[in-house]
Amino acid sequence: MTPKILHIGIVEVQFGEDVTIVEPVNLYRCTIEDHAFIGPFVEVQANVRIGSRSRIQSHSFICEGVTIGQSCFIGHGVMFVNDTFSTGGPAGDREKWKPTFIGDRVSIGSNATIMPVTICSDVVIGAGAVVTRDIDVPGIYAGNPARFLRAIHS
Amino acid sequence: MTPKILHIGIVEVQFGEDVTIVEPVNLYRCTIEDHAFIGPFVEVQANVRIGSRSRIQSHSFICEGVTIGQSCFIGHGVMFVNDTFSTGGPAGDREKWKPTFIGDRVSIGSNATIMPVTICSDVVIGAGAVVTRDIDVPGIYAGNPARFLRAIHS
Amino acid sequence: MTPKILHIGIVEVQFGEDVTIVEPVNLYRCTIEDHAFIGPFVEVQANVRIGSRSRIQSHSFICEGVTIGQSCFIGHGVMFVNDTFSTGGPAGDREKWKPTFIGDRVSIGSNATIMPVTICSDVVIGAGAVVTRDIDVPGIYAGNPARFLRAIHS
Repeated sequence: MTPKILHIGIVEVQFGEDVTIVEPVNLYRCTIEDHAFIGPFVEVQANVRIGSRSRIQSHSFICEGVTIGQSCFIGHGVMFVNDTFSTGGPAGDREKWKPTFIGDRVSIGSNATIMPVTICSDVVIGAGAVVTRDIDVPGIYAGNPARFLRAIHS
Repeated sequence: MTPKILHIGIVEVQFGEDVTIVEPVNLYRCTIEDHAFIGPFVEVQANVRIGSRSRIQSHSFICEGVTIGQSCFIGHGVMFVNDTFSTGGPAGDREKWKPTFIGDRVSIGSNATIMPVTICSDVVIGAGAVVTRDIDVPGIYAGNPARFLRAIHS
Repeated sequence: MTPKILHIGIVEVQFGEDVTIVEPVNLYRCTIEDHAFIGPFVEVQANVRIGSRSRIQSHSFICEGVTIGQSCFIGHGVMFVNDTFSTGGPAGDREKWKPTFIGDRVSIGSNATIMPVTICSDVVIGAGAVVTRDIDVPGIYAGNPARFLRAIHS
């Protein structure tokens, strides 16, 4: 049999000023604000908003329902999740997908995994961490599951 | 010097009915059954079988020797492994690679890593988990290494 | 608005003899020595050296400042890190990025994350591990954070 073959692309994306993209990428029906950067091998799904000056590095996947604030840095190979398989598998109905809210100046290390949570501003997530709960205190978090490691001494 | 440059593609793949693929992908000498879906930036190697209605999401890598059942959901950035480096490095000889068997209705969270194991039907693997042992009891497993978390209450 | 669209490619790379590359890849201002292999969906940044006979598997990201020895095997989805967000976010100034040195015959499992460290020769890093400290004793290391598991019995 012959499969149906679709292709990645940039479809119905609202771009702010001075956005830079390195293709190949798959971006659709999302909003990418001023001065943002999207690296190669990235997918950003529908109903995502990426704030001004935020950078999405290579190999990352931003799923439907994620809101990322301003001046955030999303490392390489970071995967966001909107379906927790809470009934034993995919929700099926996208009404059951859960949103994620990332504040401003949040830096997420490479290969981190972000379950549907809210992360406040001024947070660092360590590389390889798995964030399973909301974070409402600024600081550095790491591990699987991610735990508070220390305050930020800048 | 000039390197030898090869290109990804779809080579000698046996497709069932109504399969959907989002390019770019690298698929070769594998079998993809009816109604399956393969997202972008995915590689599926030789001697892999992906069962009916199973979905392989973006950025995942399905290595040689993996068998995935029906109605499975493989998240984004999931990596399967067939070489355990048991003698301190790559086995060299593919005769030493180990197979993986995934049952039906298995959902694997994004960024999970699956060593060569057997996973029974009706299992959820949490995002970011590292599965190092066979799983023969249905339920939800998470962590590094992955451990039984709870039964599925659907 | 219209974004600035760049494209991946192979730019100012010094290749040794008999190097094999599977496109699409993004390689720039790095050195790739004799008989090395670079799989698809890989990015290798500037000021990286990949030693003879080393293999970089699909979906991996080798950041600026990484030196990889000879006969290494870098699995799929492996992410190297050069910025530890030590002041609460991206260093901004690349002078503050930290280097990584990988010895010879080092095998790094898929989905592993490598912070800026030195790893001696003859080491195996387990799949999904997060390496946060220097490793100066040969052996097998795994977990998040990675810890010594056992010696290599070859």
